[in-house]
Amino acid sequence: MSVYLHDIPLSQAQARLREALQDAGLWRTLGVEEIPLDENALGRVTAEPIWAEISSPHYHASAMDGFAVKAEDTNGAQPSSPIQLIVLRDQLPVQAQYVDTGDPLPEWANAVIPIENVESLDENGKISSIVRGPSSIRIRAAVAPWSHVRPLGEDIVATQLVLPAGHILKPVDLGAIAASGHQSIRVARKPKIAILPTGTELVPIGSKLKAGDILEYNSLVLAAQVKQMGGEPTRFPIIKDDFDLICKRVLEAAQTHDLILLNAGSSAGAEDFSAKVVEKLGTLLVHGVAVRPGHPVILGMVHRELGIGTLVETKSQFTNLPIPIIGVPGYPVSAALTVDIFVEPILAKWLGRRPLELPTETAILTRKLVSPAGDDDFVRVVVGRVEDKLLAAPLSRGAGVITSLVQADGLALIPSGTQGMEAGEKIQVRLYRNRNEIEKTILAIGSHDLTLDLIAQFLAEHDRRLASANVGSQGGLVALRRGEAHLAGSHLLDPSDGSYNISYIRQYMPDIPVKVVALVGRDQGLIVKKGNPKGIKSLGDLAGTGRAGSVKFINRQRGAGTRVLLDYHLNLMTIQAESIAGYSQEEYTHLGVATAVASGRADCGLGIAAAAQALDLDFIPLFQERYDLVIPKQFADDNLLAPLFDLLADLRFREAVSHLKGYDVSVMGALILED
Amino acid sequence: MSVYLHDIPLSQAQARLREALQDAGLWRTLGVEEIPLDENALGRVTAEPIWAEISSPHYHASAMDGFAVKAEDTNGAQPSSPIQLIVLRDQLPVQAQYVDTGDPLPEWANAVIPIENVESLDENGKISSIVRGPSSIRIRAAVAPWSHVRPLGEDIVATQLVLPAGHILKPVDLGAIAASGHQSIRVARKPKIAILPTGTELVPIGSKLKAGDILEYNSLVLAAQVKQMGGEPTRFPIIKDDFDLICKRVLEAAQTHDLILLNAGSSAGAEDFSAKVVEKLGTLLVHGVAVRPGHPVILGMVHRELGIGTLVETKSQFTNLPIPIIGVPGYPVSAALTVDIFVEPILAKWLGRRPLELPTETAILTRKLVSPAGDDDFVRVVVGRVEDKLLAAPLSRGAGVITSLVQADGLALIPSGTQGMEAGEKIQVRLYRNRNEIEKTILAIGSHDLTLDLIAQFLAEHDRRLASANVGSQGGLVALRRGEAHLAGSHLLDPSDGSYNISYIRQYMPDIPVKVVALVGRDQGLIVKKGNPKGIKSLGDLAGTGRAGSVKFINRQRGAGTRVLLDYHLNLMTIQAESIAGYSQEEYTHLGVATAVASGRADCGLGIAAAAQALDLDFIPLFQERYDLVIPKQFADDNLLAPLFDLLADLRFREAVSHLKGYDVSVMGALILED
Repeated sequence: MSVYLHDIPLSQAQARLREALQDAGLWRTLGVEEIPLDENALGRVTAEPIWAEISSPHYHASAMDGFAVKAEDTNGAQPSSPIQLIVLRDQLPVQAQYVDTGDPLPEWANAVIPIENVESLDENGKISSIVRGPSSIRIRAAVAPWSHVRPLGEDIVATQLVLPAGHILKPVDLGAIAASGHQSIRVARKPKIAILPTGTELVPIGSKLKAGDILEYNSLVLAAQVKQMGGEPTRFPIIKDDFDLICKRVLEAAQTHDLILLNAGSSAGAEDFSAKVVEKLGTLLVHGVAVRPGHPVILGMVHRELGIGTLVETKSQFTNLPIPIIGVPGYPVSAALTVDIFVEPILAKWLGRRPLELPTETAILTRKLVSPAGDDDFVRVVVGRVEDKLLAAPLSRGAGVITSLVQADGLALIPSGTQGMEAGEKIQVRLYRNRNEIEKTILAIGSHDLTLDLIAQFLAEHDRRLASANVGSQGGLVALRRGEAHLAGSHLLDPSDGSYNISYIRQYMPDIPVKVVALVGRDQGLIVKKGNPKGIKSLGDLAGTGRAGSVKFINRQRGAGTRVLLDYHLNLMTIQAESIAGYSQEEYTHLGVATAVASGRADCGLGIAAAAQALDLDFIPLFQERYDLVIPKQFADDNLLAPLFDLLADLRFREAVSHLKGYDVSVMGALILED
Repeated sequence: MSVYLHDIPLSQAQARLREALQDAGLWRTLGVEEIPLDENALGRVTAEPIWAEISSPHYHASAMDGFAVKAEDTNGAQPSSPIQLIVLRDQLPVQAQYVDTGDPLPEWANAVIPIENVESLDENGKISSIVRGPSSIRIRAAVAPWSHVRPLGEDIVATQLVLPAGHILKPVDLGAIAASGHQSIRVARKPKIAILPTGTELVPIGSKLKAGDILEYNSLVLAAQVKQMGGEPTRFPIIKDDFDLICKRVLEAAQTHDLILLNAGSSAGAEDFSAKVVEKLGTLLVHGVAVRPGHPVILGMVHRELGIGTLVETKSQFTNLPIPIIGVPGYPVSAALTVDIFVEPILAKWLGRRPLELPTETAILTRKLVSPAGDDDFVRVVVGRVEDKLLAAPLSRGAGVITSLVQADGLALIPSGTQGMEAGEKIQVRLYRNRNEIEKTILAIGSHDLTLDLIAQFLAEHDRRLASANVGSQGGLVALRRGEAHLAGSHLLDPSDGSYNISYIRQYMPDIPVKVVALVGRDQGLIVKKGNPKGIKSLGDLAGTGRAGSVKFINRQRGAGTRVLLDYHLNLMTIQAESIAGYSQEEYTHLGVATAVASGRADCGLGIAAAAQALDLDFIPLFQERYDLVIPKQFADDNLLAPLFDLLADLRFREAVSHLKGYDVSVMGALILED
């Protein structure tokens, strides 16, 4: 059993796949489809250059409502010495003729005088209100030849190139194609991509879950990516981890598709069949690419029929051509990036368009990143501008954290050959958003709180975006000192006097004038089982002496704000830590504490109401801690943050926050400190 | 009759429409639609915040294939002093248990050791190949708690905000929504937009055209724009210029749509009924906006029923609500910009999303632009970077020239209050392309030639873009002198010696080292009627003495390259200009000459083969002129232009050019001059 897969460099992997496609005659556009020229052509790719069949306009056209004239006849006309031109009449010579915008210019004319520059005269030479058929007109200015005329071919000349091949059709392109005499377009056929989710542990979206079940949503993301890139995805039903079954489905898919994405099973575990499937049905080109997230990628080619040698003569050659297959890793971030890295260039080639490119900017990294030297490492980042610096704050690097891609403003690359990057170093970021949006981004780094989600929601209505990176309260203050955020959310208790934040601000950012505004009061309390079977009421019940009898506690790790809060109150209540069963059992998050309670490992733990609510547990509020916004003065006065301060006084926002369980909005907006 | 419409400033017009929508209760999202969570949700806009129903993972999950352990049990393990852990067996205590990636962590465990870091042992303590069920495992390194574990809620915590309202759904968003326990999404209903083309002169796409017919393709462009912006367009059939009929159709459309776009008839001519229709059916808010192109815009509200007062009680209130109507100007560029300026903000509001914004950059204008002081004037520009300057070269400003929008890289604004801008001034450009593409743009300014279209086509395959602005040969040399282009196409004949370009290069850009390469030889000749009824063979036939008898010539304007060429050859042939009938009749373009011949105004004129071909005329080649590429040395050596030089040696390209009528590729790539 080959437990270890061998990672090869990204560029090498891409080259192997490209060569295999070239050998199979598949490194080219796949085919042409003729479609009607309507709004559904939007986004399709021209398969051939489009040449004009006709000119536009196809005749010399009046560009205004007015009178067609010979420019020569108007020479010398002045305000003080007007010229009179005879309008078409039986026997008289023609000097002017009424034309609407778009009308053909009479053959004898070479200019148009707009109607508003003309006096209409009746047969007696008196000014008349007749528009179209006066006896004559009087003009008080000469016109140059071709004035107010759209000459034949002004827009498009028959035979000219209207659009090149490989062009992605925009709305105005459709108009130009129509104007040049076409009523259908030849576009690249959409590549058909089969997406096969495999895994015995997978269950469809919407299933009722038990431990070990994994919701199968990768195929949804992959299909949407393929669709966005111009392909035509087909999502297959979930396939169990069964080698023969997977082979069967892959062969089925190969009959009617151009590319197969075999999701998961691409690693090297006992139930990872993808590599063996590709080996059996064709050629395994690559197993493992030095790229993170995403390294257990499989690249290969499979034949449309198993056992080609036995094919009967009647089958066309075409069915024997191999088609590419990509084993896509199971973690959602790896899966999505695999499509970006390996599938997009193939679709670009098959559609004959340019590869999609994100705009790239240089940003400053806000914290140190470690990375394996051999890997191209893609890091999701939040991007914002603080003063004149464009900053990139890394989000979670976990390959399983799809929300990191949802929240990302861009993708930063730590190229292979580097072992990571220091905070403050310059890093290249491919931006998912345009610069205008980033200029309107308020960068919040610090402790996370649910109300930040609501702030983000409300600010969006006021042309601002809140991007948060969670590094804890102290990390937020450090970020402010370094000029890497506009504000930090903080709830740091000073155990010496029970105050919040101020002493820490003085310690961490001594020379920076700040404005500190209270955001919310937040309940901390005991998370207990539904119905509180042990009847726990207070910290006193945790000690061996408490009336709740034997209570198993679960603690937070040393240094956590909640641990500081617990110790502070135990001290006030003169309860000895040693008297609490489970005091030394540590969890690292609010939710970890709640999970320990839910699973029965503990009877209670200290945390926030939201964690209890998330796992449908009960919550006994004990203390309120204050969560403040710490804002350097220079940003507090900046127009960028103005909508945020408006929000703190907005009753609708206040009400929304008050609906969150365990939140108190009475302090909202209170000025805690202003330097 | 109100011939003159009154232009009001853009911001005022937008405000009036917004107020009317507010009054009608329509300045808000239109409604909610619940759709399945599949790839068709891509691009839809969330109508409400999406909160997580479940956590992801919803249990502590192994992040690797390996063995679940208690981290405490591994303390002290070293390469030299391994620790042995017992794998689950009947009566023995549990110390390690095999888990696949994604399996739930056993309740007693708090870490996972990846399988590749484990030695499997059989019941005798010997190393074994059993993967899942060895008797025990040996490890040589300790693991920290929660190593290789994805804790419950690592990605998503139940109750958290997954996505805010007003968010445009991307592929990864769909995954996050699925992961948080949803199987459908509530999105903003798509606004329904009726597009009504009006005009007796309009004919549908694909019609056989006669003079005065105008192809109706605005409704196609408008529909595609609306679709791209997230609306649902309906294209109505063409309506003749008939007031009652237009009223009838508008009322019909109003029953089932949220917004009506009434195309053309928005000016103030005799057949421009749009304003009167809006006045009759509702309220005319604005007629005329100080914006170019596009000023005859109409904004109004129409009622869903005519004569509200008479409505019977049973009809719902809703039918009485007015809906907005926009009279869209008839010229295609005006029409498209009207949708961008007035319709996009309404759709953004109705969908609850941010308005679409193009990235804005500051560029340097390459030529002077005159603009009415009162107007916001939008100018289509080609954008490229030459050395460190981002340049904006204006394209045709004609409102009828839709190809100017097709070719544009961006839209530059000359704001109201300025009467224009000088060449070299800084101008704000909203970019249609991202900077990466612009960095790969070769900017060609000079004389236009058909082969430039082919160069553009071929360069696209080599990751370069050719953007051309046509200012004539001399204009191109001036642009090179100013550092505003990478190359110029030029075919300037020196009548003193019959040479091309060099003397002009020395005159116009004396101090700039250049490389001049021949592109093509191009036939100039006589454009004659199909079948050449007058039997014209040479310039000699034009003079009164020629054997073709009485021939009417049509000339180009003084200064045109073709006129220089004519005079040069008349001089060589000692033919007097006065002896040529029509010598003093001037046209301004090759196509103008061809049109004069086609219409019978003249028997022949001098021009290029393409112009004859465009109007299906005959062509008698007489002379060959050389069309060169003039390239400053510094760019000739730049990597940006390398693919262009490759192209000149590319047989496939050479063959494509040789298929153009009247082109000679034998000179292609010849070095004419190198400083």
